[in-house]
Amino acid sequence: MPESLEQQQTHSRLRAVNDALTSGMYVHVRQMLHSLPSFDVALLLESSTPSARPVLWQLIDPDQHGDILEELSEDIKDSIIQEMDPEHVASAIEGMDSDDLAYVLGSLPESVYQQVLSSMSEQDKHRVEQALSYDEESAGAMMNTDVITLRPDVSVDVVLRYLRLRGELPQRTDMLYVVDGHDKLLGEVSLGDLITCQPDTMIREIHESEVAPLKAEQHDSEVAQHFERYELISAPVVDANGCLLGRITVDDVVDIIREDAEHSMMSMAGLEDEEDTFAPAAKSTQRRSIWLGLNVGAALLAASVSNMFEDILSQLATIAILMTIVPSMGGVAGNQTLTLVIRGIALGHVGDSNARWLLGKEALVGVFNGLIWATILASVVTVWKGDWHIGVVIAVSMFVNMLMAALAGVLVPLTLKKFKIDPALAGSMMVTTFTDIIGLFTFLGTATLMLS
Amino acid sequence: MPESLEQQQTHSRLRAVNDALTSGMYVHVRQMLHSLPSFDVALLLESSTPSARPVLWQLIDPDQHGDILEELSEDIKDSIIQEMDPEHVASAIEGMDSDDLAYVLGSLPESVYQQVLSSMSEQDKHRVEQALSYDEESAGAMMNTDVITLRPDVSVDVVLRYLRLRGELPQRTDMLYVVDGHDKLLGEVSLGDLITCQPDTMIREIHESEVAPLKAEQHDSEVAQHFERYELISAPVVDANGCLLGRITVDDVVDIIREDAEHSMMSMAGLEDEEDTFAPAAKSTQRRSIWLGLNVGAALLAASVSNMFEDILSQLATIAILMTIVPSMGGVAGNQTLTLVIRGIALGHVGDSNARWLLGKEALVGVFNGLIWATILASVVTVWKGDWHIGVVIAVSMFVNMLMAALAGVLVPLTLKKFKIDPALAGSMMVTTFTDIIGLFTFLGTATLMLS
Repeated sequence: MPESLEQQQTHSRLRAVNDALTSGMYVHVRQMLHSLPSFDVALLLESSTPSARPVLWQLIDPDQHGDILEELSEDIKDSIIQEMDPEHVASAIEGMDSDDLAYVLGSLPESVYQQVLSSMSEQDKHRVEQALSYDEESAGAMMNTDVITLRPDVSVDVVLRYLRLRGELPQRTDMLYVVDGHDKLLGEVSLGDLITCQPDTMIREIHESEVAPLKAEQHDSEVAQHFERYELISAPVVDANGCLLGRITVDDVVDIIREDAEHSMMSMAGLEDEEDTFAPAAKSTQRRSIWLGLNVGAALLAASVSNMFEDILSQLATIAILMTIVPSMGGVAGNQTLTLVIRGIALGHVGDSNARWLLGKEALVGVFNGLIWATILASVVTVWKGDWHIGVVIAVSMFVNMLMAALAGVLVPLTLKKFKIDPALAGSMMVTTFTDIIGLFTFLGTATLMLS
Repeated sequence: MPESLEQQQTHSRLRAVNDALTSGMYVHVRQMLHSLPSFDVALLLESSTPSARPVLWQLIDPDQHGDILEELSEDIKDSIIQEMDPEHVASAIEGMDSDDLAYVLGSLPESVYQQVLSSMSEQDKHRVEQALSYDEESAGAMMNTDVITLRPDVSVDVVLRYLRLRGELPQRTDMLYVVDGHDKLLGEVSLGDLITCQPDTMIREIHESEVAPLKAEQHDSEVAQHFERYELISAPVVDANGCLLGRITVDDVVDIIREDAEHSMMSMAGLEDEEDTFAPAAKSTQRRSIWLGLNVGAALLAASVSNMFEDILSQLATIAILMTIVPSMGGVAGNQTLTLVIRGIALGHVGDSNARWLLGKEALVGVFNGLIWATILASVVTVWKGDWHIGVVIAVSMFVNMLMAALAGVLVPLTLKKFKIDPALAGSMMVTTFTDIIGLFTFLGTATLMLS
């Protein structure tokens, strides 16, 4: 993995900023921060230690605060907003896109929220109230209301003259939306079409009416799939009656796609999606303790399985020495299948129509794996311990555990999904616990039958 | 995780297609496929079993083949292309974007490649040769050459008249590029600015000259970060002399972002990024065997550590019963830290400037975790086994292993990165092996000292 130029730049910048901070050259830091795009200032804040962040924030030009807040990850955004006074929050969020505005306000304590709201303009207040009325993970919460609408019965020439009078278009405008007198969405016209068609053409003649708009209540992962399906730059959002409410642009969708993809990896290790890498140790310990606590339960369960086979363990130390191999292999194989199925579910590849086929296929992989590794490990152990009986014990339990691991790798995530539980969150712990128990049980059980 | 409407649609469609296939209603399937966007046909193919895919592919309108190939994931794209005859490949890739064109040709066997190349138009041949001259993961391989260029010394009015004559713009055109007589990039003009400014304005007056273009040899993850940094829809690509070569559009960048984010999760389980969920069992077994083979080595290493403590294991079965707990907790804690650091490296948060701070923080988390779980497990085990000596043994080894797990979770990925090895690929196995060995060694070692 080659380190990118921009990553190197981030870290040489960070070092330069840190050096300047520790030597008290605040004016210099202020200038450095001012010359960077918001994305990079956000990256600097995210890469800084919790103690350096408030100092950096103080040195950032307050005019930039809003833009930088929009770029920050949630954990850090929350901690910074909590430190700001209400007037300051109100001025920082002025002119913010409605989706970010709603997020910031939604994360304020109630008393501060009221204070901020009262110092906002009527127009902003209305935008916020509308945005906050949608679920946090819905298209409604992601959309912006800065759309340009047209009527179907005007000519391109009129539209062009209107736009020239109006001046600068909202950022990332690639489409203008055609609506009727009740704001009902009739279609869309691209800027490119406006430019390339004859000036006397009527909008009704060129508008694309086969637009599949997003509904305000659709989940953000559906929004992301919609953008990928049609390779969009922006998409209109409508209410239940098909009336235009706003539009979503691809830059916000990119964030969702990244978060969704990261979510599975973080969840599988029992971490929160937006966990701050540089959070204080006490906070990190607390957050990770649930997962470790669950694992204590799993580990004690496994120990209690071993406890059932105290007889064979006290007779033969070799059995104790070898008893971790079969659970370990089962855990790795089970997690391979699990990861594949979790990704398949996330991409929409795995569902009712092919679950049975997939189970059959992974079971076959389990049988193959079982045969291969049973043979190899039985040979190794027979040679090592000079006793073919132990080889047979490990072969039998390895085969059973590899097959069970494959079945659990498919059935656990599919079952969790049926019960609307995120398979990435609970799946890994469940599969590992299952393969540990089956592995220990078959290994120690076969040993008891054959050797005691 | 609520199942999205579109996921449900995919699977009801898949069932309908499968039902129609098995009852031989090929005409019906053909019609169904024809009415779907390429993205959905690709999703159907990706969600189908290997045996159904060639039949489906035969039923797809050949005119759609190119679009669908562009959407397919690599594994499946490769297997389909291998089955197609050269003339068919040549006609499918006609009009494909240069980046996809290069990919398809790059994956053909040499003999077929020559055949396909010879049946292509001169213009396409040139585009392919250019695209293939760049590294597969570079900006050059991602870019398309369909750009509209302007000279600085013409008026907006002239440009608008030229565009009207030219007709339809290339897909996802949001910027026109301003170049001099040697194709050197001078700046860019957005469609929005062209529309909103006065017709007699000269391009030189309105072009944005502070454009940071991408270099053709930049890595695709840098391209993705560049797009996120500036929230772009498209970006120009230049050669070493600053001459315009083409442009990259956000839809291709979205694919990179998704792949990069998925890469870590898949690698951590020892799977390939684009592994086909529905690959035949034999192929899957073969691919996953390397990872399982490495784990055999790790498991045998752990067993050989236990082997050093045969004395205590043969004296006390209780030690064997409890010996899996400490390694298990260390593995979970180590992988939490590892996952956080891998994500931090991928996002550019973790680097030389803050690695030491992060190590200190995670070590402190390790100490906290060690104290908490040593206390809890020592109490549980003392009560369970009625012997406080065993409680002390588990407390000491738990504390050491939790601290070691935290250190390994930070140091392993940072060291791998220094040696240019992907931390997601090797990190998980290394951390788990390390915590298994340290866990067994400290637990069995302390037990030997205290109890034998």
